[in-house]
Amino acid sequence: MSKLSGFPEFLPAERSVELAVFDHLARVFELHGFANIETRAVEPLETLLRKGEIDKEVYAVRRLHADESEASELALHYDLTVPFARYVVENAGHLQFPFRRYQIQKVWRGERPQAGRFREFTQADIDIVGDGALPFHFDVEVARVMAEALAGLPIPGLSLTLQVSNRKVLEGFYLGLGIERPTAVMQVIDKLDKLSADKIADLLGEQGLTEAQATSCLALAEIVTTDTSFVQQVRDLGVEHPLLDEGLAELEAVVAGCATVEGVTVTADLRIARGLDYYTGTVFETRVAEHPGLGSICSGGRYDELASDGKRTYPGVGLSIGVSRLLSTLTTSGVTASRSVPSAVLVAVNDEDSRPGSDAIAQRLRARGIACEVAPAAQKFGKQIRVAERRGIPFVWFVTQDGDQVKDIRTGEQVSADPDAWTPPETDLRPQVTHKETTA
Amino acid sequence: MSKLSGFPEFLPAERSVELAVFDHLARVFELHGFANIETRAVEPLETLLRKGEIDKEVYAVRRLHADESEASELALHYDLTVPFARYVVENAGHLQFPFRRYQIQKVWRGERPQAGRFREFTQADIDIVGDGALPFHFDVEVARVMAEALAGLPIPGLSLTLQVSNRKVLEGFYLGLGIERPTAVMQVIDKLDKLSADKIADLLGEQGLTEAQATSCLALAEIVTTDTSFVQQVRDLGVEHPLLDEGLAELEAVVAGCATVEGVTVTADLRIARGLDYYTGTVFETRVAEHPGLGSICSGGRYDELASDGKRTYPGVGLSIGVSRLLSTLTTSGVTASRSVPSAVLVAVNDEDSRPGSDAIAQRLRARGIACEVAPAAQKFGKQIRVAERRGIPFVWFVTQDGDQVKDIRTGEQVSADPDAWTPPETDLRPQVTHKETTA
Repeated sequence: MSKLSGFPEFLPAERSVELAVFDHLARVFELHGFANIETRAVEPLETLLRKGEIDKEVYAVRRLHADESEASELALHYDLTVPFARYVVENAGHLQFPFRRYQIQKVWRGERPQAGRFREFTQADIDIVGDGALPFHFDVEVARVMAEALAGLPIPGLSLTLQVSNRKVLEGFYLGLGIERPTAVMQVIDKLDKLSADKIADLLGEQGLTEAQATSCLALAEIVTTDTSFVQQVRDLGVEHPLLDEGLAELEAVVAGCATVEGVTVTADLRIARGLDYYTGTVFETRVAEHPGLGSICSGGRYDELASDGKRTYPGVGLSIGVSRLLSTLTTSGVTASRSVPSAVLVAVNDEDSRPGSDAIAQRLRARGIACEVAPAAQKFGKQIRVAERRGIPFVWFVTQDGDQVKDIRTGEQVSADPDAWTPPETDLRPQVTHKETTA
Repeated sequence: MSKLSGFPEFLPAERSVELAVFDHLARVFELHGFANIETRAVEPLETLLRKGEIDKEVYAVRRLHADESEASELALHYDLTVPFARYVVENAGHLQFPFRRYQIQKVWRGERPQAGRFREFTQADIDIVGDGALPFHFDVEVARVMAEALAGLPIPGLSLTLQVSNRKVLEGFYLGLGIERPTAVMQVIDKLDKLSADKIADLLGEQGLTEAQATSCLALAEIVTTDTSFVQQVRDLGVEHPLLDEGLAELEAVVAGCATVEGVTVTADLRIARGLDYYTGTVFETRVAEHPGLGSICSGGRYDELASDGKRTYPGVGLSIGVSRLLSTLTTSGVTASRSVPSAVLVAVNDEDSRPGSDAIAQRLRARGIACEVAPAAQKFGKQIRVAERRGIPFVWFVTQDGDQVKDIRTGEQVSADPDAWTPPETDLRPQVTHKETTA
């Protein structure tokens, strides 16, 4: 009966903010034709260990009284990409490619819990997957969809920057400089967030780079623009390579494609390399200006081989939001919901014998989409009003001899009302996301 | 890379039926003031073993490389009641009682997989919990809320019966007959579904009942009415006891309270005993006429001690829908969705250079809530129409020299259209739940 570190649970008001975030994301993704799927929570342990480099973080799962003969061990998935790749291969014959799906589910990692890092958390992923080939324009599309989703998040007080880069720009640039092992350099550059430029220069030296090469690599990584002017800035560094040209054209298209999205900053940011091997072109990370310590809250990119069954290869491009990490800012930022219950109205009860009459009034309000509850006990009206107050319910409905009346308990205003016609203001119909600091 | 028995996954069309069910349930529950919560997937193993009698079915969870010093083992929850009871005790100081919540989550049991029985499945629970006391009228309320939720399920072809009984009726009746161990008798009667009446009579004899007592018990269990006439039928058996009176009054109130709900049959059914110890009054089960083998798809009742922290006791009343069990009927009954994608419109692309123009049209449609996608490739229009056909998308939008046109690909009708004004019929806006047998 005690809290488990790393397994956060919300009270109802905070949960309703989380639900508002899920609803918003689902709505944006569906408007863009992404179908929802859900995959099982477990995968064979061997599948997860083969795919990831995080074996220490995996939670193994086993029937308590499994007998010796029971097949291989299972484990909880640690992301939604590995299960999705399996799902695509397993159901390929039933899916229409390019297949676009979104998935909002819990994942589990046995990491050491710390601010913004949990052992159980929710990710929200979108991916578009092709059968054999996937045209580049889908990179532009997923970027725009996610930019739109991030821009409209119903969480006040967050300034988000979607940072876009392209592995071909980095690799082509390094090759153009005559560097022989560009991937190793990319993995060093990826640490720019955590290490000083001097330290990075040292590490690049260890990779066999000359001082001039290292200086050029660092100069490339310093380029950040909110428009397509980065292309000229890269050109000005005087490096040439066909792969660099290809990458610059791709990155230019992604940044230009997101230009019309308001409410989120989209940057070409050549510091972003993402060390992971499987990315092959476009890569994304996302920062929250108010919470730099959170790290990236939405990352992804292009994989030329998201999945393969040996015969067919499925390239993909997608992004994953760390919803729990994003929501971990709520507790410190004072964002919550305007009330802890869905109810907009509490219907008062005159005495227990007349409860069915109050129930009937509530039912007529519900028939028109107004969430309500009936007072738990036929106490004095002052006490019933306090029940509503404690729950944040804005209106109390009274059944009187002179007809029905409804009271806005925030203003005290009480008016005659018809249960088949009265409607609360739109902003009172459902709990609203609020910011304590601004309403206090 | 293979399917795991007992861990079902849906293709997108079936998943959209599941989402329609979740949306419907959430809507009904919220209209009645139930707040959503979600609890973590794991509980300490010892908590789960203490609460249930299903230790063989529990999935233990452990970090793959946990060191010896790591605290006690965890396990996946096997229902939503045990985690909810913990949540109530843990957060009691922050909750408003009576606390009404709904919870729709996965649970895991290591059962042998069979029709309608899974190892990973979803339950949808509602409960109302009091602090110290919980008036009986909440039993009537949860029954009515769940009857309304079951009645409006967006799954065609299901005839549901919510069966209500009351442990006080059974226990009072047995006590009135002079039976000393009524609980043991109740556990025998609970097997009437699986065993013949003769076998039950034998088992009652083994409990020390006389033939006359056993006959009376079986006569009580045969009483099933769709209204409150069961009261007189019980009275006619000539047994008297104060607890029987109390139970009859309660059961009468629940059945009468559900009388106005259309679309689901509510019965007083005195065969329903629910063998589990913790129920103390009202008990519920729910049958699907078309799928008798499924067993109960929605069960619950009143607990006088849902949770306790030693000092305070929290009585509760609630029901739990086995959503996965209910949805397991889909595959055999031909229920699916009208399309596998959210998109109502596919915007055609004339050539890759004009893709941004098609993207802009799509964006104008989305701004008015119309889900759409842009053709994946600028193929011949016949091929683009076939892309829409394969996904079940009803409309294809063309950008022509003479202005925009939209084609209903089911009828072939093509009309001029304005992307800021045209709207598809309401039934085409979102995927609809359909019944293959009736549409074929």
